[in-house]
Amino acid sequence: MKFCSQCASPVAIRVPDGDTKERHICDACGQIHYQNPKIIAGCIPHWQGQILLCRRAIEPRHGLWTIPAGFMENGETIEQAAMRETYEEACTRVEISGLYAIFNIPHVSQVYMIFRAELLDGKFAPGIESLETALFSEKEIPWSDIAFPVVIQALQRFFADRPDDHFPPFVDTIVPVKR
Amino acid sequence: MKFCSQCASPVAIRVPDGDTKERHICDACGQIHYQNPKIIAGCIPHWQGQILLCRRAIEPRHGLWTIPAGFMENGETIEQAAMRETYEEACTRVEISGLYAIFNIPHVSQVYMIFRAELLDGKFAPGIESLETALFSEKEIPWSDIAFPVVIQALQRFFADRPDDHFPPFVDTIVPVKR
Repeated sequence: MKFCSQCASPVAIRVPDGDTKERHICDACGQIHYQNPKIIAGCIPHWQGQILLCRRAIEPRHGLWTIPAGFMENGETIEQAAMRETYEEACTRVEISGLYAIFNIPHVSQVYMIFRAELLDGKFAPGIESLETALFSEKEIPWSDIAFPVVIQALQRFFADRPDDHFPPFVDTIVPVKR
Repeated sequence: MKFCSQCASPVAIRVPDGDTKERHICDACGQIHYQNPKIIAGCIPHWQGQILLCRRAIEPRHGLWTIPAGFMENGETIEQAAMRETYEEACTRVEISGLYAIFNIPHVSQVYMIFRAELLDGKFAPGIESLETALFSEKEIPWSDIAFPVVIQALQRFFADRPDDHFPPFVDTIVPVKR
C-alpha cells in the first residue's frame, strides 16, 4: 500500500497513538488502513471411502494435487465458502459433515479452515482452476505430489481418525521449512 | 475504497474477467483489490468456576459486558490473538484449553473464533478498552447487559456443556435481528 484508498494521498507507516503495531496511516484524511489475516476455506470431499482431489491448473504449485479450498469472500459463511470452492474447482456439490482442521500459517497471515464433506451424487469434473479431478483411496493418495503441507497434514490426520469414525476438530500451526 | 492503493488512480467497481463477483479494479495499473472477511479471536476466561468478563470502555456497545476478543493481526496465530486480546482488555495471562465456538457473521463479514482458556494466576484488571473487569458465576452473568449475541450464545453453550466437562467445538451463524 502506497496511497490512501480514501483520498489518494501518500500513506505513512508508523504506530498510531494508543496502538502497538505499525500501520499504513493517511496524514491527509486521518484514515488508518488495517491489514488482517485471510481465511482459506475448503473441505476433504469424501465419496464411498475415497477422497476427491484436484490437480492445480494455476500457480502456486501448478500440476500438484490438493483438496478444494480458496479465499473466503465477504458476505459468506465458512461453510458456504468451502462448498463454493469445491464447486468451482471440482464441479461437485457436497454436504458439510463438520469442521475438522484449522491451520494457522502466520508467516503468510492465513488461516485454513477445512471441513469434512460428502459428495452428494459422486459426479465431479475439473473446474477452470483444475487440470483434473479424481477419487483416491488412502493407498492411492499421491503423497509426494500434494501441493501444500496443510493438505498432507489434514489428510494424514483424516486417515488416522477414520478407523474410529471419530474426527475431533483440531488447530495446528504451520511453520516455514528451513532450507 | 475510492482510489488505488498502489498508484492512486480512481478505482472502478466491476466483475473481473474469469471472476463472478464485483471487485475494486484499477484500470490504470491493473490491480484488483480484494476484500475478505476478518477474524475476531477471543476466549472464555475461566478461573475457579467463574468467568472473567470486561465492561466495554469503547464503542460499539460502550458500558456493556463482553468476553475479551478482537481483530486478529497479521503474523499471529489465532491462539496468540486470543491471548493478546485477553491481556490488552483484562490485563491477565491465560492458557488456551481448546477451540470452542466459531461464529459466522456474514452480514458484517466477520468470523469469531472463541477458545476456552484458564487464567494463570487469577489476577486481572481493566485494560484501556475496559471500564471494569470482574469474575462471574453462572448465576451472576449479567445476561441483559451482554454486548454481543455471539457472547450470549457462547456463554450459554459453555454453561450447558460444563456439567459433563465436555466442550465439543461448534460452528454457528449469526443472522441479523429483524426489527
